[in-house]
Amino acid sequence: MPYGLNDWLKFLVNTSREVHSTVKPILGSALASEVVGKGAGGDFTTRIDKLAEDVIINSLKSQNISCIVVSEEGGIMEIGGKSDVHVVIDSIDGTTNAIRGIPFFCTAIGVSKGNSIKDVDAGVVLNLSDGMIFYAEKGKGAYMNDKRIKTSGRASLEDAVIGVDFSKAEKEKIIGLMPLFKKVRHLRHFGANALEICYVASGLIDAFVDVRGILRVTDIAASYVILKEAGGKILKPNGEELDSILEPTQRVSFIAASNPTIYDEILKTINLGK
Amino acid sequence: MPYGLNDWLKFLVNTSREVHSTVKPILGSALASEVVGKGAGGDFTTRIDKLAEDVIINSLKSQNISCIVVSEEGGIMEIGGKSDVHVVIDSIDGTTNAIRGIPFFCTAIGVSKGNSIKDVDAGVVLNLSDGMIFYAEKGKGAYMNDKRIKTSGRASLEDAVIGVDFSKAEKEKIIGLMPLFKKVRHLRHFGANALEICYVASGLIDAFVDVRGILRVTDIAASYVILKEAGGKILKPNGEELDSILEPTQRVSFIAASNPTIYDEILKTINLGK
Repeated sequence: MPYGLNDWLKFLVNTSREVHSTVKPILGSALASEVVGKGAGGDFTTRIDKLAEDVIINSLKSQNISCIVVSEEGGIMEIGGKSDVHVVIDSIDGTTNAIRGIPFFCTAIGVSKGNSIKDVDAGVVLNLSDGMIFYAEKGKGAYMNDKRIKTSGRASLEDAVIGVDFSKAEKEKIIGLMPLFKKVRHLRHFGANALEICYVASGLIDAFVDVRGILRVTDIAASYVILKEAGGKILKPNGEELDSILEPTQRVSFIAASNPTIYDEILKTINLGK
Repeated sequence: MPYGLNDWLKFLVNTSREVHSTVKPILGSALASEVVGKGAGGDFTTRIDKLAEDVIINSLKSQNISCIVVSEEGGIMEIGGKSDVHVVIDSIDGTTNAIRGIPFFCTAIGVSKGNSIKDVDAGVVLNLSDGMIFYAEKGKGAYMNDKRIKTSGRASLEDAVIGVDFSKAEKEKIIGLMPLFKKVRHLRHFGANALEICYVASGLIDAFVDVRGILRVTDIAASYVILKEAGGKILKPNGEELDSILEPTQRVSFIAASNPTIYDEILKTINLGK
């Protein structure tokens, strides 16, 4: 079935809400954290990951949608007839938070007309602990709980609140980030990168930096379009456009910034070598 | 009026809920962030800080309680008749989050029979964004939303989720923490230290580390008793008992750990010199 962009957005919002109502009853239970397999991205798949993924796949099938699903858990699979449309799924981003009961984890689904992150046209990110939803489609702006959002205009690092993920980062990268740690007003790391990029999109924080090179493209595909539609930038740490094919094994490094000035300030401050 | 420990706990819970209902209407508004003065701790006082503080002070006065109030905003003040009881207030911990709309900030009130943090007998910490409440009194256990809580038994750093605040830390301290950054499963920093220590108390995270030496004792007095009653430890980074007089200018460095093993692991892993 051919789906227009507007149909996709409705599908994404409805499906993410269905994920929410499905996982809610098992949140915080031992059941949620039971390991049920290993994902295409290399991590263990817990019951809560699988449950959320099944909701999304079943939702695609029940609507007779033809597409290529790209998922951290299930890998790449064709659904329906031949199609160039990629549906990029991170069924649960922030699984550790979800299992621990820390109220910051989400489901993220992006839709792309091609196989590159640049082609992502629509995305939804829903915080599964409180139901807060972020969504966007190309050219139509970004929204948080049905309210139009835009990134902050904050231009100075001294006033900025910046999220950084450097768990498991190499020593050299941490050292390269240190001038940033010193300069910014406050650092944050909440533990679900897709949602943290949406925090940049909505102006709650001013940038989110992950230069480890270990985050999967599936984690950020949906947030990519939400941030761009909110007026933000997401670039590689060397200043180039972020680009990646949409495969569950693809890893990315990026700076997600609320505006060009803060991006430039971050780039000037960190020192990641060549 | 002489207050028993049990009376104090009721007072703390009721007063923190009153703070919640009072600040709720202005959350996220420009009004909340308006600077209305400078606190005894040295930071600017915003309208939301002041509003929360006024609720607590008025609550003490209206109950005819005699005590010494120790507050980040208002400094030290005697209320009612002569008393050794100290009421230690951080009216809003996580003001930046509160102003930005990031749903992680709290009010924290501790009650102490003397002027040292070791004397703190009862405490309450209430997350003002979602109403989640943590409280404890000495010898009676710690609670989250009326459910008894205890710290996690997790003993290995490789499995641990650890909160670290190193905003504005000296370069040497960040370097000393780097082996910890590398070793733990996940790092977190949510931005309200009183609440983050309660996350340790309730087993959501396994430790919280702040070795900057810039956090005020008023920020952690309430959480101190909640963590201890939940079975956790809070010690100086050199292994000594945490101690500090209860004054708004006093600064502390500490490791709040869920159990002695994880505390020892952290201590072995970090290198803060002498």
